[in-house]
Amino acid sequence: MPGASNKNDYVVGVDFGATKIYAGLFTATLNLVGASKMTTKPVRGSASVMDRIARCISDVVDECDLTMDKVRAVGIGAPGAVDPEAGRVILAPNLGWQDVPLQKELEKRLDLPVAIENDANAALIGVYEEEFGGKPRHVLGIFMGTGIGGALIINGELYSGFNHSAGEIGHMTIDIDGPKCGCGKLGCFEALASRTAIFQKIKAAVADGQKTLLTEMLGEKLENLRSGDLRKAIQKGDKFVAKCVEDAAEYAGIAVASLVNLLNPEVVALGGGLIEALSDVMMPRLTKVATARALAGTIEGIQIKDSMLGDKAGIFGAAVLARRRTK
Amino acid sequence: MPGASNKNDYVVGVDFGATKIYAGLFTATLNLVGASKMTTKPVRGSASVMDRIARCISDVVDECDLTMDKVRAVGIGAPGAVDPEAGRVILAPNLGWQDVPLQKELEKRLDLPVAIENDANAALIGVYEEEFGGKPRHVLGIFMGTGIGGALIINGELYSGFNHSAGEIGHMTIDIDGPKCGCGKLGCFEALASRTAIFQKIKAAVADGQKTLLTEMLGEKLENLRSGDLRKAIQKGDKFVAKCVEDAAEYAGIAVASLVNLLNPEVVALGGGLIEALSDVMMPRLTKVATARALAGTIEGIQIKDSMLGDKAGIFGAAVLARRRTK
Repeated sequence: MPGASNKNDYVVGVDFGATKIYAGLFTATLNLVGASKMTTKPVRGSASVMDRIARCISDVVDECDLTMDKVRAVGIGAPGAVDPEAGRVILAPNLGWQDVPLQKELEKRLDLPVAIENDANAALIGVYEEEFGGKPRHVLGIFMGTGIGGALIINGELYSGFNHSAGEIGHMTIDIDGPKCGCGKLGCFEALASRTAIFQKIKAAVADGQKTLLTEMLGEKLENLRSGDLRKAIQKGDKFVAKCVEDAAEYAGIAVASLVNLLNPEVVALGGGLIEALSDVMMPRLTKVATARALAGTIEGIQIKDSMLGDKAGIFGAAVLARRRTK
Repeated sequence: MPGASNKNDYVVGVDFGATKIYAGLFTATLNLVGASKMTTKPVRGSASVMDRIARCISDVVDECDLTMDKVRAVGIGAPGAVDPEAGRVILAPNLGWQDVPLQKELEKRLDLPVAIENDANAALIGVYEEEFGGKPRHVLGIFMGTGIGGALIINGELYSGFNHSAGEIGHMTIDIDGPKCGCGKLGCFEALASRTAIFQKIKAAVADGQKTLLTEMLGEKLENLRSGDLRKAIQKGDKFVAKCVEDAAEYAGIAVASLVNLLNPEVVALGGGLIEALSDVMMPRLTKVATARALAGTIEGIQIKDSMLGDKAGIFGAAVLARRRTK
């Protein structure tokens, strides 16, 4: 019957990190029907986190007035080093996980086929399939949010390297005398241009007496500061905040130039919460700096684009993985 | 007849740069029979340079008491962006070349099949096939000499990117406030750790009154300073020269850490004239810094090795390309 839907026509894509679990229900043709969010609470341990992932999945299915027997498969983007073939999270420091059989445990909880992948890899697959139609041969994905993650598509396929951990661009040294990174080294890309880095810079300056509209909006301690607040302050003419965000964009441009020189991809795709909230401030600067700094012949014809999927890239990519899992 | 050699059993591999042309004659099983060198003289123009390459090839054949009809094919590693399928050097700033049909022109001059490739790519192919037996899936090659070049093997195949210019690791920004690079930017890997960078640092310090054994060896102006002189000075206990070389090794370690985080290769192969002359000083420091700085899960099991082929990597790789060309 053309147009009629089969019993198991849906897939669920899950993007989970140390802070939140985000699950989206998709049709077989990758239309997003509905989504659900839940906190991760990693301190409760891996079994509890996996229970919560399963609950977030059943929540979104229920929210869309469906039942689990309509779901064909589940895809999951998880933080850290992930071995998709073995179905295991090898190492995820943010979660405190080491060698967790995420795929098997969730298949047990859900009674459904589950595919897992690193979160940045899943996000790039989402951007690649949904936005780029799977066309460019080589794509570099850069995801800027709390941290900075990256992923690579080479010859049309995800490249994950020898230890399933390729794409860790956040810890590329850009300024050997720069601020200290969470990894312990100085001047990593992430320590200069992530949301965390921008927030720290703003808070330190405010503590030193810097005036900004942000304190009028949020109080002196800048509690609950979010990317959207930076956007609002810039729109109201706050030059200090604009400078902080532009500096981050400049560092990102420097990183993109180094990466284009090295990898010479066809497309550089920027995504993540920071880019989603501030793309109109960051992208022109980032693109200008990257283009000026990359070697002339190398940058030619290469597209530098911000993703339209925003923070939905991860659930889209996880849904693509779920769909592949059932083929 | 088993054991008898065919008429066309040899290939020639050529490594040519802005300074010199280096040609090696190899048996079909890649044994190096003899080699010949000639200056490039790029100021005379591309036609003259290609005449010189052809002459260097006939020189080595003659030197080995053979004639050109014994040669089956020629491979050439050339500087800059090279399109092997089109057989053209797209852009080679050091030579002043733009869109030169190197393959066709040499086939005309030699009446033999010719294969061309970027010089760093050719060198990595040499290391990969001759030293590593073509086994590792993903290899990063770093060649440190006058400049710093790089090349990538991914899934067992050379990766050259969208514009045939992948692997330009020399212009990765490491220290945003560092010394000025030939490319015009500050703090590129090449501006911190190439032979040129080390020599400049030493010469500037000597001009400022720094004492070193090098001036006793070569005079106050340090004319004709070579990597081997650094080695000799260090062996005689020159702590200043040792520090300059160790600093370069430290920068190289920082670059390797960033590259391992990003690419997660199975092997990182170091080569080029600087490493060949100073591997015992540079490799321990480089490896220590890279291992300490790379993300823990990412560096695990990854080998960081200096190539035994030294400056012969390029001619070996070019010979491999010549052999492939005839298959």
